[in-house]
Amino acid sequence: MQSEEMVRLIRLLSKLPGLGPRSGRRAALHLIKNKETSLAPLTQALQEAQKAIKTCSTCGNLDVCSPCSLCSNPGRDKKTLCIVEDVSDLWALERGASFKGLYHVLGGTLSALAGIGPEELKIPDLINRIQEENIEEVILALNATIEGQTTAHYIQSQLETLPIRITALAHGVPIGGELDYLDDGTLTTALTARRSL
Amino acid sequence: MQSEEMVRLIRLLSKLPGLGPRSGRRAALHLIKNKETSLAPLTQALQEAQKAIKTCSTCGNLDVCSPCSLCSNPGRDKKTLCIVEDVSDLWALERGASFKGLYHVLGGTLSALAGIGPEELKIPDLINRIQEENIEEVILALNATIEGQTTAHYIQSQLETLPIRITALAHGVPIGGELDYLDDGTLTTALTARRSL
Repeated sequence: MQSEEMVRLIRLLSKLPGLGPRSGRRAALHLIKNKETSLAPLTQALQEAQKAIKTCSTCGNLDVCSPCSLCSNPGRDKKTLCIVEDVSDLWALERGASFKGLYHVLGGTLSALAGIGPEELKIPDLINRIQEENIEEVILALNATIEGQTTAHYIQSQLETLPIRITALAHGVPIGGELDYLDDGTLTTALTARRSL
Repeated sequence: MQSEEMVRLIRLLSKLPGLGPRSGRRAALHLIKNKETSLAPLTQALQEAQKAIKTCSTCGNLDVCSPCSLCSNPGRDKKTLCIVEDVSDLWALERGASFKGLYHVLGGTLSALAGIGPEELKIPDLINRIQEENIEEVILALNATIEGQTTAHYIQSQLETLPIRITALAHGVPIGGELDYLDDGTLTTALTARRSL
């Protein structure tokens, strides 16, 4: 019923995160119906992204240059290193615009099942980087999931012998959050870590 | 923080139906991280779709040839014409595989606000087509929305003088549907149109 070209386009769009067979069909139809305003610009943007965007050899960020614009920015604090799981976490922290140090993107979490060990996450590289660049503080900004916290504990154990300060993001009530909707774990942590006013 | 290429790719992906800023970012990151397995094939599929897929001059379907493979299929019943709003509705009916006639895609519904009149939906073309191709039955398979039903009524009024049978899809309880979850309108319609067993 559908031509081979259409089927292939729908299949590839359906595989994008957040899309499924139905939304893939809708997206393909939208693109085909708007060839000039939507399909052609997207094709060009994909081609340019494929050519231009590379992984930063220092921190693992994605940028058009390596070292990336964050690593080579003289205005950043070169003594503080923030460790994140993924580039999307780096983007989230940069949107906050309150962190002025450098990043180290692990590219995942430790997983015995998936065969992801310390080497795959470049943890030996991280230790070298901390020593070579005279880092003074490492902030473990990993996701508050079992996998993220396991990886954070492993990294902490590996860095214990180094003369650096190791910190982690605070847990507690999110800004704008209602206590009634919070899970028990978060509430208990927020209570334990209460601060004097 | 993000390079121009990345920002443009995220913006274009975010504009696809079903995607927003956050899922656009996730999709862009997925594509950049999987250049060989995801980005390159998608770019190629988009290029091929742009070149190959066109609108059928007879029925408005999207295909690599015009007249499309449905219009030129000798196995289809050329006396029955199913009128649908959009190509996605044609695909939905074809997935059902029970309709063996031809289609006529309106490409939208009548809308005074958006300035979409009978000419924009090619309703005069439809009337010509019915007369030239000696159509015997027209099935109004428009969405059961206010806009769809208004358009169906208008088309019905235009076709009344022609010596054809005009039918519409049945309304009622969807297969697998639970009465408790159905709206009152559907339930009332299903009760009114009850059938003898």
